[in-house]
Amino acid sequence: MSTIEAPAGLQLRSLVKANGELELSLVEIATPRPQADEVVIRVEASPINPSDIGLLLASADMMSATQSGSSASPVIKARIPATAMKSMERRLDQSMPVGNEGAGIVVSAGSSNEAQALLGKTAAVLGGAMYSQYRCVKARDCLILPEGTTPAEGASCFINPLTSLGMVETMRMERHKALVHTAAASNLGRMLNRICIKDDIGLVNIVRKPEQEALLRDLGARHVCNSSAATFTHDLTHALISTGATLAFDAIGGGELAGQILNAMEAAAISSSKEYSRYGSSIYKQVYVYGALEPGPIVLKRNFGMAWGIGGWLLWPFMQKIGRPAVQRLCERIVAELKTTFASHYTKEVSLAEALSLSEIAVYGKRGTGEKYLINPNKV
Amino acid sequence: MSTIEAPAGLQLRSLVKANGELELSLVEIATPRPQADEVVIRVEASPINPSDIGLLLASADMMSATQSGSSASPVIKARIPATAMKSMERRLDQSMPVGNEGAGIVVSAGSSNEAQALLGKTAAVLGGAMYSQYRCVKARDCLILPEGTTPAEGASCFINPLTSLGMVETMRMERHKALVHTAAASNLGRMLNRICIKDDIGLVNIVRKPEQEALLRDLGARHVCNSSAATFTHDLTHALISTGATLAFDAIGGGELAGQILNAMEAAAISSSKEYSRYGSSIYKQVYVYGALEPGPIVLKRNFGMAWGIGGWLLWPFMQKIGRPAVQRLCERIVAELKTTFASHYTKEVSLAEALSLSEIAVYGKRGTGEKYLINPNKV
Repeated sequence: MSTIEAPAGLQLRSLVKANGELELSLVEIATPRPQADEVVIRVEASPINPSDIGLLLASADMMSATQSGSSASPVIKARIPATAMKSMERRLDQSMPVGNEGAGIVVSAGSSNEAQALLGKTAAVLGGAMYSQYRCVKARDCLILPEGTTPAEGASCFINPLTSLGMVETMRMERHKALVHTAAASNLGRMLNRICIKDDIGLVNIVRKPEQEALLRDLGARHVCNSSAATFTHDLTHALISTGATLAFDAIGGGELAGQILNAMEAAAISSSKEYSRYGSSIYKQVYVYGALEPGPIVLKRNFGMAWGIGGWLLWPFMQKIGRPAVQRLCERIVAELKTTFASHYTKEVSLAEALSLSEIAVYGKRGTGEKYLINPNKV
Repeated sequence: MSTIEAPAGLQLRSLVKANGELELSLVEIATPRPQADEVVIRVEASPINPSDIGLLLASADMMSATQSGSSASPVIKARIPATAMKSMERRLDQSMPVGNEGAGIVVSAGSSNEAQALLGKTAAVLGGAMYSQYRCVKARDCLILPEGTTPAEGASCFINPLTSLGMVETMRMERHKALVHTAAASNLGRMLNRICIKDDIGLVNIVRKPEQEALLRDLGARHVCNSSAATFTHDLTHALISTGATLAFDAIGGGELAGQILNAMEAAAISSSKEYSRYGSSIYKQVYVYGALEPGPIVLKRNFGMAWGIGGWLLWPFMQKIGRPAVQRLCERIVAELKTTFASHYTKEVSLAEALSLSEIAVYGKRGTGEKYLINPNKV
């Protein structure tokens, strides 16, 4: 039976009102008594991923944000532009919890052996609502971390590690031989770089700034192209010829980059063939857009023949596609390499209340490459 | 052994010179004596498809074209814009024959029984170089047309019929339940409309003009949306809800239409679900771009979630993908319904020399929807 009764705890909430106002606040909620197959986790670390910020800030204009309430229980209000409200229809007036993933200590467990075995362990969960002091989840959904692993070290076990491994798996499943990655100096990009070095996979890193180029080269990246450089098209084409990459994962989306990548892939493909075809190369070229760092239109200037595709890529459908046992195998690798390949780095650790301060939102809300916050809902 | 020795014949050629000049002309070539497994066809009908015009006119500025030579052997010259010359590199200074498909009479045959059996028959071929008076091809590549079928009736047996059937096959293979088609009043579009009516498949026809809308409705189309109408988004969304179409084939490419279709598919998908997901609907939406009636950039204004794809679609890789026996089955259907479902209509029949007159090029070169020429290389 359950051993410790978990107390009520705070949970961060994001609410979009029909009048176009975003309201962020902390609410106190009772922690459920775990069912037989459940455990309660005291959450001590949960990252603010780009995928959380969308749900959290709801495209609101944070320049217009105001802070009220107390310092222990702040309330943030901001205006959502009318254009963004269109896509909010289905979340209107629902106070939504946030936080895809996190880690903590199992403080209470249901009656099953499986649940009881987890008591006192450090567990990571891809459970949603992780910006909470306590979370009740299925025991089988817990990824148990080895002795000596802190919740902070295990906070980002899923989104970035599974996404970067998912890119490599997708490459294999769809029979490409190397990868291109944009916004490559991000936490995710550095992780992908480590995987590709370890697994000897060709990776073309695309960044936007010279300092990001230097950073990735320092981390051992062989192919780094700066999209702001005058020589970008030339550099990219050469890196594509060198690696044979015909698959790209693009975090940016808006603008011409996806099309530039396809055009450079086509130029690389044609460079090794002699015959003329007015339909272009028969080598298939694919860009998956997995983010929207630039939410504007995707502009494709077609000079890439007919053997091409561009599409959305998202972790959840990918996991569904490969199935639970395959995901489990990926998770085992993640745990085994948690302090090396899959280590995450954070700019700052904040409490739930600190996460709702205008000055902190101004930093993590801009989604700067490499800037990443960790929430510790039980920070004292 | 071969029975009739085919004489030398004229062949239409398209030549791109390194100095940026396009030259179209007729050359006289010897007709090969057929090998054992070959036959010689006296070509009497070959359509000018959009897919031929690209190779023929090589993006030249036909406003600048001049005509010289004799009326029996005209020579057309025109300038190719510098921007278009980039993609011509691999065809420079090669005099290229044109004409993907056509039909005619087998006038000479190799020694094999298979070849001999075709003598005197009317045959259709997807052979390339069909803008020729005589073509020597493999007997097994001939599609033999039933008694009472003229070469003109069989001239377009492949490109449009296989493309429109390929769209329906792709829909089935990729598990969509209905189709969207743009530039739907084209010869191809009307053919697809006939297939979908016959096979009871939902088809949303998108056109650009009211008269095209009327034409398709007269042909029995149930869903026709005019992209120039103020109500287009609304009309399209309703047609998508009604049919459940999540796959589109787009002949236009450039501009915002492909994105508008994806957005309307997403709106249709969301209209039947209750739950909020900030990643949008999980229903997969696909647009295949198979043409470039508008060669400008494809502009995707993303409001269609993450479950989407857009890519090139081309007949040849599709045929490779399904394999020869499956193509053969499609061809059998085409022959069986050649005068009904797969009938093509032509604006005009011209000789090879007439095809190289500035006044005719001015008509067929503009690729107007529904305007289609037939070349009869042996027209007397």
